[in-house]
Amino acid sequence: MKKYLVEFIGTFFLVLAVGMNVIDCDAHNFLPPLAIGATLMVMVFAGGHVSGAHYNPAVTLAVWLRGRCATADVVPYWISQILGALAASGITIFLKGNPTVIPDNISPMPALVAEFLGTFALAYVVLNVATAKGTANNSFYGLAIGFTVMVMAFALGGISGGAFNPAVATGITVLHIEKAANFWIYLGGDLAGGALAALVFKFVNPEDK
Amino acid sequence: MKKYLVEFIGTFFLVLAVGMNVIDCDAHNFLPPLAIGATLMVMVFAGGHVSGAHYNPAVTLAVWLRGRCATADVVPYWISQILGALAASGITIFLKGNPTVIPDNISPMPALVAEFLGTFALAYVVLNVATAKGTANNSFYGLAIGFTVMVMAFALGGISGGAFNPAVATGITVLHIEKAANFWIYLGGDLAGGALAALVFKFVNPEDK
Amino acid sequence: MKKYLVEFIGTFFLVLAVGMNVIDCDAHNFLPPLAIGATLMVMVFAGGHVSGAHYNPAVTLAVWLRGRCATADVVPYWISQILGALAASGITIFLKGNPTVIPDNISPMPALVAEFLGTFALAYVVLNVATAKGTANNSFYGLAIGFTVMVMAFALGGISGGAFNPAVATGITVLHIEKAANFWIYLGGDLAGGALAALVFKFVNPEDK
Amino acid sequence: MKKYLVEFIGTFFLVLAVGMNVIDCDAHNFLPPLAIGATLMVMVFAGGHVSGAHYNPAVTLAVWLRGRCATADVVPYWISQILGALAASGITIFLKGNPTVIPDNISPMPALVAEFLGTFALAYVVLNVATAKGTANNSFYGLAIGFTVMVMAFALGGISGGAFNPAVATGITVLHIEKAANFWIYLGGDLAGGALAALVFKFVNPEDK
Repeated sequence: MKKYLVEFIGTFFLVLAVGMNVIDCDAHNFLPPLAIGATLMVMVFAGGHVSGAHYNPAVTLAVWLRGRCATADVVPYWISQILGALAASGITIFLKGNPTVIPDNISPMPALVAEFLGTFALAYVVLNVATAKGTANNSFYGLAIGFTVMVMAFALGGISGGAFNPAVATGITVLHIEKAANFWIYLGGDLAGGALAALVFKFVNPEDK
Repeated sequence: MKKYLVEFIGTFFLVLAVGMNVIDCDAHNFLPPLAIGATLMVMVFAGGHVSGAHYNPAVTLAVWLRGRCATADVVPYWISQILGALAASGITIFLKGNPTVIPDNISPMPALVAEFLGTFALAYVVLNVATAKGTANNSFYGLAIGFTVMVMAFALGGISGGAFNPAVATGITVLHIEKAANFWIYLGGDLAGGALAALVFKFVNPEDK
Repeated sequence: MKKYLVEFIGTFFLVLAVGMNVIDCDAHNFLPPLAIGATLMVMVFAGGHVSGAHYNPAVTLAVWLRGRCATADVVPYWISQILGALAASGITIFLKGNPTVIPDNISPMPALVAEFLGTFALAYVVLNVATAKGTANNSFYGLAIGFTVMVMAFALGGISGGAFNPAVATGITVLHIEKAANFWIYLGGDLAGGALAALVFKFVNPEDK
Repeated sequence: MKKYLVEFIGTFFLVLAVGMNVIDCDAHNFLPPLAIGATLMVMVFAGGHVSGAHYNPAVTLAVWLRGRCATADVVPYWISQILGALAASGITIFLKGNPTVIPDNISPMPALVAEFLGTFALAYVVLNVATAKGTANNSFYGLAIGFTVMVMAFALGGISGGAFNPAVATGITVLHIEKAANFWIYLGGDLAGGALAALVFKFVNPEDK
């Protein structure tokens, strides 16, 4: 239960950062990636020692495929993450005074490629800095993970909105930042990117079971 | 006494960063969070080994509830932090040439929620990265703590002013950045957020006494 | 083979960050250095334990001269890096919808000096933080290396475009960000900067074979 | 001699970052502090294990007073730092095409206070993160030191120009960014700030000889 609470708290603040920084943000084009990526960083540093600090169903999938998440934890992790995203969406609506939000207009195929690439990068970094023997006991895992979201959002946010995380996708869909009709892009692209990262990790770390 | 001096110095530079960056800042909307959060980061790295580097009465409350601050130190820490904030406010007024400042107009209920959430996040991160056995001897505590203030200010600063710290609230009240009539929001919201963080920490780290 | 795949992936995301952040970027003057440098940072943290995380033919040259890269790996590393850059250029063109790009107009002599200095700094930092006995087992190597590219791009990007890396130079030439006629500047300046860094490293770390 | 070369290289790139980012910089108000502070960070991480990475006569004074710099090294360190600043100024003039620079107009008394406070903070952080037993073997010293310059430049750069370093002051005087008539402000304020930091360090770390 304590692991699920940590997943809830971390995803809550991540999605709160997304909602508060993206809606009505004058500096929309460049600030949200830093604010959001650094939020993930601090929550990974705070919660990693308890739950592994996934805060992302695609990361949970990748960590499970790599063998560092118990099968019995996968669904409860996903539920905790989605609940955190929903709670953050509600608080965002309250704090912003029920704002009117016009959804992004994204092109599905480039967006799918962008979500796949960004989530692959995120899960590839997570597995290598937080589960590999070659980087054991490092002090940079949160910095690396959080800033991967920042840099992928800088590079690819203009193409797909830059979720790289089905829980974040849930939040931005509830907040009308992205259209519900595009939710499949995030679900499919992100889970596929996470799964490929697990395969690549196993290939490049063959002795690391 | 050396611990109190370190608390005074750290809070002094934190509040100096607030005053100097917020008053008459052309880049008001996005820069102060980075400048202020990074100031906290460097002061935490510099002073953590002497005083624990709270620089914040709500953090001192949380660390005391968690059992890592002697009861005899709580009030002297608070006094040192408030004195640091007052000294920084005076220096800010001198350096800025006695500036005219128009206070923010904030809505009390959203501001109270924002201060509560932001200070909860800050104290939750502090307890997990600076007092938990699971993260002992890490090199990221200052980065995590300082950048939590940055990201909470990015997300919530537009709602409450983003103090998350009664000593900072003292400084911004003296500097007329926030109205004295709203001081209760910071005192109540921040201390409550810090207290809840201590409870949550104990729940998610049950074996860590 | 696993090392070559890691070099391909890291260089791919580095050049993707360059292409996506520089082309049609409203915040052209200051954002790309942060986005690009932080991309290098996360890829160095993710891949350093497998391949050394060069992602740069000039760095591979410097590490080889310093004696920390097998001679048999040099050409395969270079090929992996160039292939990563080419793949990223193709994906950038797809995601940006085949954009029209007007190449920079740079002055060759200042640009050559800028590339030489920036790549010298990068290789000097890499050798000292990732191969020196005096900094063994540190947790900052990715931060130091990635942010060296950021700061050199801030300082020198306006002079030369700020590649400091023949693989990046390949990408920005393919993407028409820089003129093909200027490619020699990057090849010559960057390899010379890397080579000098290896000599300086050996002089200042005489006992570190 | 190897230590003096490292001091020369580090100060060279620090002053190069100052010159290149401050002169003709469209984003003058907020970018240079990040670029300059991060330059110091990477050079501290690269050179700390050889020379201690002072790159600043006021820091050398503080480290000498604290007992971690040989008396025979003080003057050679100062000379290396000044030579690095002069070389960087020359390269800046070449790369910028001999630019016309209009010096800042600063008020001496606030500037003296600002330089004193900023250099005190810098030397206080250096001594605590790079020479204290309580923070031995950390991986954050470069981050803490570099970002101290960034945050002090954010807070105080508008008052004094934000040198906090007599070698940087030499560079910005040669480059006409600051007036030669104001050089005494940097020399006096910075050396006094460094000296006070050494006294405070000894008081708060009494058992750390």
